[in-house]
Amino acid sequence: MTGLFITLEGGDGVGKSTQAALLESWLVAAGRTVVRTREPGGTEIGTEIREIVLHSRGHISPRAEALLYAADRAQHIAMKVRPALERGEVVVQDRYLDSSVAYQGAGRVLDGGEIRSLSLWAADGLLPDLTVLLDLDEDAARARLDGANKRFDRLEAEKSDFHRRVRGAFLGLANAEPARFLVVDAAGAPDEIAASIRARVEFLLAHP
Amino acid sequence: MTGLFITLEGGDGVGKSTQAALLESWLVAAGRTVVRTREPGGTEIGTEIREIVLHSRGHISPRAEALLYAADRAQHIAMKVRPALERGEVVVQDRYLDSSVAYQGAGRVLDGGEIRSLSLWAADGLLPDLTVLLDLDEDAARARLDGANKRFDRLEAEKSDFHRRVRGAFLGLANAEPARFLVVDAAGAPDEIAASIRARVEFLLAHP
Repeated sequence: MTGLFITLEGGDGVGKSTQAALLESWLVAAGRTVVRTREPGGTEIGTEIREIVLHSRGHISPRAEALLYAADRAQHIAMKVRPALERGEVVVQDRYLDSSVAYQGAGRVLDGGEIRSLSLWAADGLLPDLTVLLDLDEDAARARLDGANKRFDRLEAEKSDFHRRVRGAFLGLANAEPARFLVVDAAGAPDEIAASIRARVEFLLAHP
Repeated sequence: MTGLFITLEGGDGVGKSTQAALLESWLVAAGRTVVRTREPGGTEIGTEIREIVLHSRGHISPRAEALLYAADRAQHIAMKVRPALERGEVVVQDRYLDSSVAYQGAGRVLDGGEIRSLSLWAADGLLPDLTVLLDLDEDAARARLDGANKRFDRLEAEKSDFHRRVRGAFLGLANAEPARFLVVDAAGAPDEIAASIRARVEFLLAHP
């Protein structure tokens, strides 16, 4: 069997974990071995790197931070993802380089294109076979995230603007690589979303 | 006053520390403020990064290791070197990106050109105003490093071959950027070497 590398992307709260779990169950029932992962991916070094980033926030330069995340990615891909793919397993990963590009680009500190190059160098060029973008329009995202808020104040407006930029960045990445991306409307029913993801994965498994 | 960024490069035992100390004394006597540094440069994050690299050796992927060193460099340049240069001080640094390129290239794990790009991205493009390469020919280097050895065994031959490749890489870098490099024969008397370095620094201070 040939390995398959699937990543799930999108903003917070769009249902990535739910879809990853549904996909894993289906793949396991179909007889495949699945590695579900995320970054930090549980490598010892990744954990130590995250400790540095989280405890030093505010005193760390933007480039140093990006390089530390890239180091975490390099270690995770080399030690966990590639070996699984070489064993013919299916890797289902919550967030990968598209998140790095979309969030950096939206935050406007470093250039998204440079972050993409850095990530690809870290991963020695490994791109997913399939990237599922769970896309949620602005009104739906606001309703989910800010449901408890009474007033739409300046902070909320900034959050909303940031989400809009991140969403735009993700959609731009999907448009640039239509063969790799499957864009699904995250406002749909979880079972319907799962079905459309399965259809694409089934096709990839049949045409390795 | 304009800041000046000077790096010292070359193999182990060629006299970089001695020359850095002599240069610092002369600059201070000339009324300049000097920051002598090396990587890890004493930033808190740099120290933590080195802890990871040193304690995880053997389980760390080559790209993760290179990215961790680059993160250390990014932090050191952003937090220590650039601020000093902006205050008009002279930074004298023991080893910088040329060492990363020469040692990686000689070790043949990662491509030297890629390591150079990574380092330059980490440092946001900061190149030294002057790089002093303390060059030692193979016989002199072997005499210094292996003086106590009776037999020239296989391990010694490998060491010697590695030093030859590192030296060749350094000389190649110097040839590619003659305006930035000053190559001095490290077999000479320390005072003579110091005098030729001072002559070049004096010129740079007079023509900022």
